[in-house]
Amino acid sequence: MKIAVIGVGLIGGSMALKLKAGGSASYIFGVDMNTVHLKTAKELAIIDEISTLENAVENSDLIILAIPVDVAKALISIVLDLIKPHQTVMDAGSTKAGIVESIKDHPNRSRFVAFHPMWGTENSGPEAAVSNSFSGRAAVICDRENSAEDALNTVENVAESLGMHLIYMSAADHDLHTAYISHISHITSYALANTVLEKEQEEETIFQLASTGFSSTVRLAKSHPEMWVPIFKQNRENVLDVLNEHILQLNKFKEALENKDFEMLSDLISNANKIRGILQK
Amino acid sequence: MKIAVIGVGLIGGSMALKLKAGGSASYIFGVDMNTVHLKTAKELAIIDEISTLENAVENSDLIILAIPVDVAKALISIVLDLIKPHQTVMDAGSTKAGIVESIKDHPNRSRFVAFHPMWGTENSGPEAAVSNSFSGRAAVICDRENSAEDALNTVENVAESLGMHLIYMSAADHDLHTAYISHISHITSYALANTVLEKEQEEETIFQLASTGFSSTVRLAKSHPEMWVPIFKQNRENVLDVLNEHILQLNKFKEALENKDFEMLSDLISNANKIRGILQK
Repeated sequence: MKIAVIGVGLIGGSMALKLKAGGSASYIFGVDMNTVHLKTAKELAIIDEISTLENAVENSDLIILAIPVDVAKALISIVLDLIKPHQTVMDAGSTKAGIVESIKDHPNRSRFVAFHPMWGTENSGPEAAVSNSFSGRAAVICDRENSAEDALNTVENVAESLGMHLIYMSAADHDLHTAYISHISHITSYALANTVLEKEQEEETIFQLASTGFSSTVRLAKSHPEMWVPIFKQNRENVLDVLNEHILQLNKFKEALENKDFEMLSDLISNANKIRGILQK
Repeated sequence: MKIAVIGVGLIGGSMALKLKAGGSASYIFGVDMNTVHLKTAKELAIIDEISTLENAVENSDLIILAIPVDVAKALISIVLDLIKPHQTVMDAGSTKAGIVESIKDHPNRSRFVAFHPMWGTENSGPEAAVSNSFSGRAAVICDRENSAEDALNTVENVAESLGMHLIYMSAADHDLHTAYISHISHITSYALANTVLEKEQEEETIFQLASTGFSSTVRLAKSHPEMWVPIFKQNRENVLDVLNEHILQLNKFKEALENKDFEMLSDLISNANKIRGILQK
């Protein structure tokens, strides 16, 4: 199978490496607005050929969009305009309602499969790509009933090749759940970084003292605005709901500390500890 | 050197394992209120002997307190009452102002070295202990001028055996910095867990979708109240200051989202990205 990877960064690059290694991809066209990324991807053998969008789409069986969700939303109908009926298009974006809404009346809608691999790091670019990244992780396919059966099968096989287990849900449910499970973590992490940067003027002390706990909580704060602003924009209402709840929960800790109510504090912590059971199920 | 480890949990157990492996400890007495932990520690060869506090203190060159900070604060003067002038006492607690204040007039004050290894996990108990845990991490010694030179040397050698690099500061500075670098991360993480548990009723979905990002941000929320309530109690004012700033920072994200001010959102994220340069120095 020939594959066009639109966006040869962390996600597109990691998918390309694994699909090539596993034999699913016989040839990979790389498309990117960033020519440095394209060159790097070619040098790292992530892609076989640097290509234009038109050439890549024309010559591929599967087109993978692995670009920020605002660009994907803008590009998806252009790609669907270009394809023939045997071709399949999938994305890898962190929001889903926006992209599926934008093509709901497109004549080639059924060739598109809305896909979200639940993996990422705070790094970006083709040099951050790792072949086995997705192994053992969950991937979500949204609104499967709107995709043609053969297109769905193609993407399901891709997920299998990546070593991922599939979950099916509606685009609306996906965006609600990811607001909790992923998007709010980023806001928390950004705000924590800004808190420390604002109040802790001694940078050297941050560096010297930063424990593993701090590093892991603040890790996501390294993620770039180019990727995350579009996600928050597309999932604004869900994220705001969760953020309001999160501020309310933080205010409970504040209240307990202010009132020296250490029993309340203990209860809040014990409740949070329940996450252990859920995450380790 | 014979060592008494008071508290054979994650921290005390990990120190015992490493000091034994490196040859610094010739014999280890284990003391704990939890008899199951003591038995496990003996079975895992973390300690050589299950002991009473009195026997362990009497027969050791070095006494390590690796217990919750409220218990340490209550126990330290009892231990200092028991020791002879050649013995050294150190702690491993996450707050320092409280414990040094409580013994500031004790005749054996100079035998105590206030120590804080900047490492921990969300797990507890002797079975969580790992020998090489501390390697490459920072350890803080507070108020060194109040410790006798030979006691200080003993603890500096312990830090070296653990593979840690030392930072010296006052107990007050320590508690201020750790509020930023460690304590607030825990509150953030607890509040995030409570947010998700409150709003996301579908536990199965949390489990299935939880990405690496969520897991790393919420990891600390598994930490027990027995350890953390006393830390927040002893460092209440610093933690409250940082928490207020954190809520203020989160409200900026809320404001940007509510006003659809995505330029402001991008600026907030770009500012948070600066943490990358500081953490990777």
